[in-house]
Amino acid sequence: MSSKRRRVFFISDRTGLTAESLGNSLLTQFDGFDFLPMTFPFVNTDDKARSVVDYVNKSSEDGEGRPIIFSTTVTDSVRALLQQADALFMDLFDTFIPNIELELQADWAHAEGRRHGQGADGGKRYESRIDAMNFALEHDDGQSMRNIQRADVVLIAPSRCGKTPTCLYLALQHGIFAANYPLTDDDLDKLTLPAELKPLTKKIYGLTTNAQHLARIRNERRPGSKYASIQQVSYELRQASKLYERLRIPYTDSTSMSVEEIATLVMQDKGIRRHSF
Amino acid sequence: MSSKRRRVFFISDRTGLTAESLGNSLLTQFDGFDFLPMTFPFVNTDDKARSVVDYVNKSSEDGEGRPIIFSTTVTDSVRALLQQADALFMDLFDTFIPNIELELQADWAHAEGRRHGQGADGGKRYESRIDAMNFALEHDDGQSMRNIQRADVVLIAPSRCGKTPTCLYLALQHGIFAANYPLTDDDLDKLTLPAELKPLTKKIYGLTTNAQHLARIRNERRPGSKYASIQQVSYELRQASKLYERLRIPYTDSTSMSVEEIATLVMQDKGIRRHSF
Repeated sequence: MSSKRRRVFFISDRTGLTAESLGNSLLTQFDGFDFLPMTFPFVNTDDKARSVVDYVNKSSEDGEGRPIIFSTTVTDSVRALLQQADALFMDLFDTFIPNIELELQADWAHAEGRRHGQGADGGKRYESRIDAMNFALEHDDGQSMRNIQRADVVLIAPSRCGKTPTCLYLALQHGIFAANYPLTDDDLDKLTLPAELKPLTKKIYGLTTNAQHLARIRNERRPGSKYASIQQVSYELRQASKLYERLRIPYTDSTSMSVEEIATLVMQDKGIRRHSF
Repeated sequence: MSSKRRRVFFISDRTGLTAESLGNSLLTQFDGFDFLPMTFPFVNTDDKARSVVDYVNKSSEDGEGRPIIFSTTVTDSVRALLQQADALFMDLFDTFIPNIELELQADWAHAEGRRHGQGADGGKRYESRIDAMNFALEHDDGQSMRNIQRADVVLIAPSRCGKTPTCLYLALQHGIFAANYPLTDDDLDKLTLPAELKPLTKKIYGLTTNAQHLARIRNERRPGSKYASIQQVSYELRQASKLYERLRIPYTDSTSMSVEEIATLVMQDKGIRRHSF
């Protein structure tokens, strides 16, 4: 039975993030459907698997078409139980592991929670990620230039172009040390950067955005202010672009980009080796 | 030819995040290999695909065994080119889309960048995520109680137990409004919480950690201080657990947990509907 509403279950013995990433990438390719997602994390025993299967089967009685399951579970018995649900069942490990085993001439470990655990290196990589986040917080919005040379990248832009979320995302997702600096009136009038940033020119990346879009965002923060006026916003964006061109700083228009996309562009442009957590 | 070192390529027409998530989940299941990962984002033309294939093929001449490719590209011609690389080629769309098409009785859209775009809802969902990040920053470390009732969850713990990274992660990854409050000496001595938090008891989640671990982390920040002493740390953790028990606040030991794992536990415990970006 086909229906335009479909329940979607992401089932995992750990966080469920990989199942969500996989499933959402696939389902966004189908237009006109109303997918109702639900995530079951930590499904790592036969008992838990049985109660999830009960839930899925009950939900499939509500006339909304057969549910879709994206699963990442390492325990064979758990997977075998989940497979019995009245649903389209897709499992990451079942699907890809046999090819990789053949390629590597090795058996897989069936080990839980390796991807987002603190890791086999005694947590060093995990700690560097937390260090990166603390660095981003300390160097947010130009509030400190201390150890700024430690930065992998410095984002500059007028206020509210997406610097802060991008820096925090670069830190948390990729373990990258990212500082950001908001261009001041003085910088924009004179088309220069503060002395502390001069030695870092190769690490700097600029953001710009659409003037109407920026005025709207600023108006939500300070309604009716000069700061949010289209005149002020247009001036800042025009001067920012001039400054980027003058100092040969690469930049992009972030208007319709997500933090993931901005972060990816910045890492690619700066040749930064990305980690994946 | 089999080798213990293997190059791994994540190739995507957009950010590459799904390919990384997929590939890393699978490869962490193989012990004793030294995987050398590299991500190629924005591979969305035949020309770019050809140059990636050249790069992959050259790298496979270095005697480290056949490379492994995880790919998520929507354009058929790009995928067909990538498939010709001298590598184990695994593509997310090739693998799963036919089953989903059959299930939904619908064709897939072949549309780029849907998962991390700003979305078909005019960016509303994306904006709520940025709002969540701003909320987390404003309500980090108890610095503001303004609009605290807007929080989906309030994390409490002694200093340096993982509150801040977890809150920022909840905001950026799941669009959840998360505040955090560091337990003060006064709270810990009296086993009470500030008046502002009382109406929010159902939203509160506590963290604790191993005393040696916490003393080490605090020593990196303030070496030799009372704040970092094992006596002080042990006292705070003991009192924090007492406070959680007394006020019936659910809590977990975050010592060996990643932010993803803590965030998943908190969402599950609080019955918070998670979004996925």
